[in-house]
Amino acid sequence: MPDADLLGCLAYASLTAFGRTAAAADLAPTLTAKATMARLAVTDYQNYESLVAALAERRIEAEEAMAPFIPPIDAFHSRTRSQDWLENLLAAYAGAGMAADLAAEVTTIGGTGLPDLAHDGEFADFAAEQLRSAVSAEPARAGRLALWSRRLLGEALSQAQRVAADRIDLTAALGGDLTQFGALLLRLTERHTARIAALGLG
Amino acid sequence: MPDADLLGCLAYASLTAFGRTAAAADLAPTLTAKATMARLAVTDYQNYESLVAALAERRIEAEEAMAPFIPPIDAFHSRTRSQDWLENLLAAYAGAGMAADLAAEVTTIGGTGLPDLAHDGEFADFAAEQLRSAVSAEPARAGRLALWSRRLLGEALSQAQRVAADRIDLTAALGGDLTQFGALLLRLTERHTARIAALGLG
Repeated sequence: MPDADLLGCLAYASLTAFGRTAAAADLAPTLTAKATMARLAVTDYQNYESLVAALAERRIEAEEAMAPFIPPIDAFHSRTRSQDWLENLLAAYAGAGMAADLAAEVTTIGGTGLPDLAHDGEFADFAAEQLRSAVSAEPARAGRLALWSRRLLGEALSQAQRVAADRIDLTAALGGDLTQFGALLLRLTERHTARIAALGLG
Repeated sequence: MPDADLLGCLAYASLTAFGRTAAAADLAPTLTAKATMARLAVTDYQNYESLVAALAERRIEAEEAMAPFIPPIDAFHSRTRSQDWLENLLAAYAGAGMAADLAAEVTTIGGTGLPDLAHDGEFADFAAEQLRSAVSAEPARAGRLALWSRRLLGEALSQAQRVAADRIDLTAALGGDLTQFGALLLRLTERHTARIAALGLG
């Protein structure tokens, strides 16, 4: 039942992305930034609802489908906590970009009927502009943020590898065997790196 | 311009309620509770958007309209912080109830065109049931939670009185002079108290 794994993993990822983005709203330096983060969090929650609805259509219990992904996703978040606004903004930007890339990959693979997931393009523009101007105001930030983006990627890949080893169904839903899964991660890595480089970091 | 004050105050209250409810989702003991809090937070954000849209229709700058209410609303939240799940659930329940009561009062007064605000009735049922069963499982909780609900009310009234003293326009939008405003607060207090008593507390 590959659908259960993919939908359950994305559902729990969306629910925790909601919490993380909402917490980042608290650190936002302006009301505009706060409201923008809150709007992104709403998108995360709406995606969670769509994924749970897709599970229900398949008569799969959402809590059960999410359960195997709670430890790795919680581990990712606890290893990449930050109280710094720019680091949180970059994490949200990188995460939203990677989620969109992953959704596109799944559509290409065509195996699973993923529900339409919302992607907040306005957020991406906002975040990119804020990050670029923060770096141009204080160029020393570039190195620290580049390091942070590599750490986010590293932790994400490490958890993904751990999950792939455990969950054959998920690997199958994402293209086949572990080699093909590795190639998928590599494509996501390349796009992440290009997105970060385009900000003037790294 | 009474509208600016009332809409600005409610807008900032909704935006911060979003943050507070989203943070409470992090403390929720089950996935169902987490998702329920996230859904309530989404309602808060949607209300924020409706209020900002109502300000825009009146050609009022949202940030300016919210600015006077940032100190008292932030003070309310910082004086009523808690890391306890049941206290946070009760705060969300009490806050949602009071917001609905206040919206009904404003409609009765009829002075201001308030946009339609969402009220999550499913959340109220969920919260009431969780709180009742938590207290029946451990009756000693009743006293602590009753005390907490009085503290929430006390801080809310204290900030409201401070705002009313400063903002003649807001007082006018909410029924007239300080005496009428005091009577409004008394009605809200009575309903809050009845709502808490119905949970088997205090």
